[in-house]
Amino acid sequence: MSPPKHKACQTTFRIRYAETDNMGLVHHAVYLVWFEEGRSAYIRARGWSYADIEASGYYLVAADLAARYLRATRYDQEVTVMTWIEEVQSRAITFGCEILATSTGELAFSASLKLICVDARRRISRIPAAWKPWLRH
Amino acid sequence: MSPPKHKACQTTFRIRYAETDNMGLVHHAVYLVWFEEGRSAYIRARGWSYADIEASGYYLVAADLAARYLRATRYDQEVTVMTWIEEVQSRAITFGCEILATSTGELAFSASLKLICVDARRRISRIPAAWKPWLRH
Amino acid sequence: MSPPKHKACQTTFRIRYAETDNMGLVHHAVYLVWFEEGRSAYIRARGWSYADIEASGYYLVAADLAARYLRATRYDQEVTVMTWIEEVQSRAITFGCEILATSTGELAFSASLKLICVDARRRISRIPAAWKPWLRH
Amino acid sequence: MSPPKHKACQTTFRIRYAETDNMGLVHHAVYLVWFEEGRSAYIRARGWSYADIEASGYYLVAADLAARYLRATRYDQEVTVMTWIEEVQSRAITFGCEILATSTGELAFSASLKLICVDARRRISRIPAAWKPWLRH
Repeated sequence: MSPPKHKACQTTFRIRYAETDNMGLVHHAVYLVWFEEGRSAYIRARGWSYADIEASGYYLVAADLAARYLRATRYDQEVTVMTWIEEVQSRAITFGCEILATSTGELAFSASLKLICVDARRRISRIPAAWKPWLRH
Repeated sequence: MSPPKHKACQTTFRIRYAETDNMGLVHHAVYLVWFEEGRSAYIRARGWSYADIEASGYYLVAADLAARYLRATRYDQEVTVMTWIEEVQSRAITFGCEILATSTGELAFSASLKLICVDARRRISRIPAAWKPWLRH
Repeated sequence: MSPPKHKACQTTFRIRYAETDNMGLVHHAVYLVWFEEGRSAYIRARGWSYADIEASGYYLVAADLAARYLRATRYDQEVTVMTWIEEVQSRAITFGCEILATSTGELAFSASLKLICVDARRRISRIPAAWKPWLRH
Repeated sequence: MSPPKHKACQTTFRIRYAETDNMGLVHHAVYLVWFEEGRSAYIRARGWSYADIEASGYYLVAADLAARYLRATRYDQEVTVMTWIEEVQSRAITFGCEILATSTGELAFSASLKLICVDARRRISRIPAAWKPWLRH
């Protein structure tokens, strides 16, 4: 999972209070939401939008996830989400992600998520040819 | 907002870890999720289901909320959600809710939420006559 | 609740996919999270940080909420959160909030939330004199 | 990841409206919350509580996750969460999880999560001897 950083999309935001838990740290499920925002930003940076994809009748659904939590993050910190495409198959796209503490550059989280393309009836589908422009990685 | 307790639907569950925040208490937005579960339970207790309502092409969308937070709650506690109908209008339903710490009966939260009926195109709509059985309160 | 807009703090962000629900709209509890982010931004804009407040042993806990949902919002839209202080009492602060669709300026949500100051043992406390600089509104 | 079902703890609940997303399905991050509830239930079934563990000054933080999403789930469905211990090391515990649609028994999600034991200062720590009763699997 070494990130092809020159090909990654980078997005930065502050950690919300609601994202913390009893331990005073960010809850581990929240990193999946940030990774998802990273994918949205990736598609947007290539001139598309995931909203348009859904409007066209296709969806990407989570299938296979591997994730490592390396360092805790806290309320009000800034985090940088790096997102890239690891692999494109006929019916699936695998995204990679690294989340860093913006101020120190320390790695907090890294993950790889394979998403399956489905159509409006939730049947597995080939990736539409129209996606090629934003899939080229 | 004195609850007509004999008409209220009661549902009980444990507080989840993910529902807490940095302060070691349940995050204030979570009570709205519990209230929503209270409404789901209310409709189910009357032999219907909010899932069926949406399947029939109607939705209830939040319009007006008043809420009081009276006592903090914590991970692993049990809470009891009491839900009832306060008022039915031609295009709106107002639900009331009280959330108690199950073990002590102490009131943690009370709220009133007016929901507007909309159709599949999200236009304001009269409440369907078919809902009468579960609306009788 | 007419906002003193010249005194309001303004913050803008895109709606996340995870913030939507079955209805294809933003879930109504999410607006409380955005309002909370508005308060964080308000305090930050005055040179403080809510993280520092908690580190100093004080907390602001939700007590009384009134909210109106005026227009639905959707994934990938930009929203602008306007936040201001409505009232400061000896032990409480009331914040006001308006959330607008950034592109059209249409009002989606307005709310008023009274927060009570508590100390590290969660006892109601006077607002520390040290907060005066960011409370002046 | 074949589950030692005779050793698994089983807990069942209905899917909440707030757990769904724009696609009409449960959001993929929610399964981590359910898995966490499965771990809470596992510890409780062995006469302990994760709340007591934290009160004693120790915490379990997520370190390594592998998860597969096999079938979508929807609002109002009942799901059954099976949770078991896969491995205990000196400083880590690995839990396994399977989430099934209760009515059909179809597998929706399976995962394995390694958690690291940390003390109150968030330093990696040996698992306290006192935990042995609930760790015996």
